[in-house]
Amino acid sequence: MLWVVGVGLREEHITEEGKKAISRADVVYGSRRAVEVAKRFIRGDIRVMERFGEEVYRKIEEEGRESEIAVLSTGDPMIAGMGRFFRNARIVPGISSVQIALSRLGVDLCDVVVVNAHSRNDVKAVPGRNLLILARKGVRVEFPGKRIVVLERLCSEDERVFEVDGNFLVEDDYTIVFVEVVE
Amino acid sequence: MLWVVGVGLREEHITEEGKKAISRADVVYGSRRAVEVAKRFIRGDIRVMERFGEEVYRKIEEEGRESEIAVLSTGDPMIAGMGRFFRNARIVPGISSVQIALSRLGVDLCDVVVVNAHSRNDVKAVPGRNLLILARKGVRVEFPGKRIVVLERLCSEDERVFEVDGNFLVEDDYTIVFVEVVE
Repeated sequence: MLWVVGVGLREEHITEEGKKAISRADVVYGSRRAVEVAKRFIRGDIRVMERFGEEVYRKIEEEGRESEIAVLSTGDPMIAGMGRFFRNARIVPGISSVQIALSRLGVDLCDVVVVNAHSRNDVKAVPGRNLLILARKGVRVEFPGKRIVVLERLCSEDERVFEVDGNFLVEDDYTIVFVEVVE
Repeated sequence: MLWVVGVGLREEHITEEGKKAISRADVVYGSRRAVEVAKRFIRGDIRVMERFGEEVYRKIEEEGRESEIAVLSTGDPMIAGMGRFFRNARIVPGISSVQIALSRLGVDLCDVVVVNAHSRNDVKAVPGRNLLILARKGVRVEFPGKRIVVLERLCSEDERVFEVDGNFLVEDDYTIVFVEVVE
């Protein structure tokens, strides 16, 4: 069986369901970051993923037919995560940086639209909704006159949350940018 | 200190961080459903919330200035939850029914817009995005010609996921309706 397990951003985020799925696995795949978060619960072989893409995912799926495989996803597998790339996998939800950001902002998910700007540079407004942008270094967020809140390195020791006015060039990967489009 | 703790939909969803916040509290507030999910970790007094609203929240905030108070929120406090109603509270994220729904659908959060239809009956489309509607009994979802997936009683023993065509009258509280608006 293939499990895609959300591990959150730090060890305390891992759910009981997640711990079980990780501990049970013969082989555990994940980015260096995800493996670091979950390492206390890993019993099987660790395979740090350096490459991502169709070919890699299909090979892992095949392994899942023979043995217990866990793929670790930082945050939640269905929030800008790896969940949608696997077929016939059981998904174990985890705490996403989106949820952390909303808790820092005091804003409900139903009042924003979440935009994945990891793979593109143009961020467009959606009528009637504030924006929560998952950005990486180099993304420019430009909304003249609008209040922008930047959330950097959430849940790390040097987490930083600050406001800017209308325009921001993202300096860090794993940055989330909130734009108050709706007044 | 006041903590608003997301407990997910069942006990296995509670994170280590959540368990700690619940166990530490002198008094634990929550709906009957939320208390039921978290009861194994509660050490303090239980106060089942029957009423919700400004007055109730301000009173709880005041208590939080004197002692350790936890307010339990099913799912996540910032996803159609109680988190946004409290000031000066620490929010502990939890697994939301939205995340469960996305995992069943194989759809990423960044491809939908989440609509809270608990307090209104009109659901409008948002350009370029599929809809994930948090609905209750009596809400009518009408999108002629579009594929609709209904997710009832997620994570319960009688969970049900089924497709309908273009039109659906929600029969159950805690129903999530996915509408494939974008082809």
